[in-house]
Amino acid sequence: MPSHAGPAHPADPSITEHRTADATLTVTVDGSPLAGQEVVVAQRGHKFLFGCIGFDFIPLANGELSAEEQAGPGGVTGSLGEASAAQAEHLAELWFDVFNFATLPFYWGRFETVRGRPDTERLRKTARWFADRGVPVKGHPLAWHTVTADWLMDLPNAEIAREQAARIRREVGGFAGLVDMWDVINEVVIMPIFDKYDNGITRVCREIGRIPMVRMVFDAAREANPNATLLLNDFDMSAAYECLIEGVLEAGIKIDALGLQSHMHQGYWGEERTLATIDRFARYGLPIHFTETTLVSGHIMPADIEDLNDYQIPEWPSTPEGEARQADEIVRHYKTLLSHPSVEAMTYWGMSDGGWLGAPGGFVRLDGTRKPSYDALHSLVKGEWWLPPTTMATDDQGRVRFNGFLGEYEVTAAGRTAAFRLDAPGEAAAAVAL
Amino acid sequence: MPSHAGPAHPADPSITEHRTADATLTVTVDGSPLAGQEVVVAQRGHKFLFGCIGFDFIPLANGELSAEEQAGPGGVTGSLGEASAAQAEHLAELWFDVFNFATLPFYWGRFETVRGRPDTERLRKTARWFADRGVPVKGHPLAWHTVTADWLMDLPNAEIAREQAARIRREVGGFAGLVDMWDVINEVVIMPIFDKYDNGITRVCREIGRIPMVRMVFDAAREANPNATLLLNDFDMSAAYECLIEGVLEAGIKIDALGLQSHMHQGYWGEERTLATIDRFARYGLPIHFTETTLVSGHIMPADIEDLNDYQIPEWPSTPEGEARQADEIVRHYKTLLSHPSVEAMTYWGMSDGGWLGAPGGFVRLDGTRKPSYDALHSLVKGEWWLPPTTMATDDQGRVRFNGFLGEYEVTAAGRTAAFRLDAPGEAAAAVAL
Repeated sequence: MPSHAGPAHPADPSITEHRTADATLTVTVDGSPLAGQEVVVAQRGHKFLFGCIGFDFIPLANGELSAEEQAGPGGVTGSLGEASAAQAEHLAELWFDVFNFATLPFYWGRFETVRGRPDTERLRKTARWFADRGVPVKGHPLAWHTVTADWLMDLPNAEIAREQAARIRREVGGFAGLVDMWDVINEVVIMPIFDKYDNGITRVCREIGRIPMVRMVFDAAREANPNATLLLNDFDMSAAYECLIEGVLEAGIKIDALGLQSHMHQGYWGEERTLATIDRFARYGLPIHFTETTLVSGHIMPADIEDLNDYQIPEWPSTPEGEARQADEIVRHYKTLLSHPSVEAMTYWGMSDGGWLGAPGGFVRLDGTRKPSYDALHSLVKGEWWLPPTTMATDDQGRVRFNGFLGEYEVTAAGRTAAFRLDAPGEAAAAVAL
Repeated sequence: MPSHAGPAHPADPSITEHRTADATLTVTVDGSPLAGQEVVVAQRGHKFLFGCIGFDFIPLANGELSAEEQAGPGGVTGSLGEASAAQAEHLAELWFDVFNFATLPFYWGRFETVRGRPDTERLRKTARWFADRGVPVKGHPLAWHTVTADWLMDLPNAEIAREQAARIRREVGGFAGLVDMWDVINEVVIMPIFDKYDNGITRVCREIGRIPMVRMVFDAAREANPNATLLLNDFDMSAAYECLIEGVLEAGIKIDALGLQSHMHQGYWGEERTLATIDRFARYGLPIHFTETTLVSGHIMPADIEDLNDYQIPEWPSTPEGEARQADEIVRHYKTLLSHPSVEAMTYWGMSDGGWLGAPGGFVRLDGTRKPSYDALHSLVKGEWWLPPTTMATDDQGRVRFNGFLGEYEVTAAGRTAAFRLDAPGEAAAAVAL
């Protein structure tokens, strides 16, 4: 274990088992083994998808921010939309130093507020901005009863369904190659019985049923981009989601990964519950993505709130005790997820405070400073789970051996550099020609 | 409305709409209309299935009870198995005066405690005893992870599955004509994740999945008795059961009726929740059976008990206040169910106190006396919802008109009697030849 490892956690051995390879790297130069020489091996990327939403960076990616800082009263800047380019660049720097996977917003009600005028170009620029920085993008979500287009309610159900499928083909087809992963449909468990307000998607789902709804949206997405990774996503971790998944799979609908939300505004789940939850959904043999995770660094939302959206308070401050707890829980949660071999991705729901519900759920405070949770996560992703440039001596057959996290690597010797990957846990042989 | 009607309830108009017919009965004698004569019309039976479990009557139906009373200490007799035939006959008299539909126990773990030695004959005698009294019988349940046969755990999963299907074919085929309605499978929502104790059925369901499990047991039952009415039954009234049902129906499995349990040991649901629940499950266009209903006449089980089976107390007495509350809730619950056109049956879970969990959930106290709830239910089933022998005068075309609950009727005139049925709500024409 690297010397910068933090305190031991019961999950550590499983993380080593499922997330690292015992690599034997053979280095050749001009066809001959580079025997008995020093080489420098360095990790360049993680295979595991350490994700975060990238909503905040749409203005930056689109050049919509001013050059100078626009401080509000007391020097505190407001939402990022009003922030300066410099502030956004600072946040981006922090973002890219820990994350390698972005989720961008395609909520229909915001993406196409006025029928026929989708916000395609801004999203395309943002997706390209991430792609240019080596970060793959997922679109979220293509079908959902919340934040859906209000104008659907003027249409009969059959036309709503046609519009839904057409919108999916448009986005998935139009962004193919740039966005190849989608939360296709969100929260189907409650979709047909959602009763907080009328909306077109609930109407259709109630009429045709959950499984035909899932089939319709997955068929549209699959047709538009056969290479895309398509997710079913839900917050309901009960047997209801299991029953839905079993019905969908039994109906022959191909799902590429199961999305599990974990907004923990009401408190960290703990290792036991988290692992039990993963186990229940891992039974289907599909990759698990933790799609939406939040851990707050302020007070915990009361347990009697059933729909988190019902908790609206004027101010929800981040506190020193809350920040210490959040940092601890971040480490425990990431370690727990990486200890289970089915989990392939984890998306955190917001770099900065003041996002959804105004919760202090970010890694960065409203004033742009890092919380302990940021440093804790960084010390995992770029510390305990990362191979920094390391000098090793090759043996007489040009080989070096090391244990490293799965992902992309480089080896450098005598002024030349070559890349290789560690793709599967356990013993791994790699060869590079410098 | 008959003069013996109780206090008005908001459900009453819907009950009249969905459960009664405005009948025009034409009476002929020897081919001619019986014009201007007095006839007596009397209801003989209800179309609605007013059910109750008939477990208590197995000893009586099998002649296992002694002729004299066997009182225990203090004059209190113990379970009905120890009671005298006279006591059991008294209970049966009360039973048949309100109920027209019986559920008998086919729990595998009790029905076939020793592999190959099923308790077929005692159950057959009991089913015939009910049939002889004009009461159809439902068997409960054919597949369940609770009270299942312990010896299954000695078998590999594939053999457990074969035994399960074979046991279903044996019971459903063997009892065909005598028992033509079955709760085929019970509580599938939690079946594969049930973790209180190991059992063969959970093992199989976890391996093959919920929907293949449902398909297997329904296929076996359907094959053994194509005329049987086959139910899916669950206690989980959440979206989980909806998702299960949608998956099962989408998979092409034919379900004849949906069973909803309503053990209300933790308090009466109330009209609003009950109707909302029925509405959610009525969406599938299938008849709804309330399969297991309990309302206690003692204190209410604390709300924090998640699995009712976890509440085991030495004594759970029936109290005067509790009995008054129970009587009121019985009327409200039955009225609510009959007000919804999708509900075709309601089975109460136990005539006598001291059944499941020792709860005071019966209509009859431990000492054999009737509670107010019995009289309240009787005053509905044989009072407010019943046409007693009623003298009517035919018009010049031999017709009488009356409003009556759906079910079987007789008309008598000049010493002759003929039967007719009212089968559908609304305007109904019937004709009898005396």
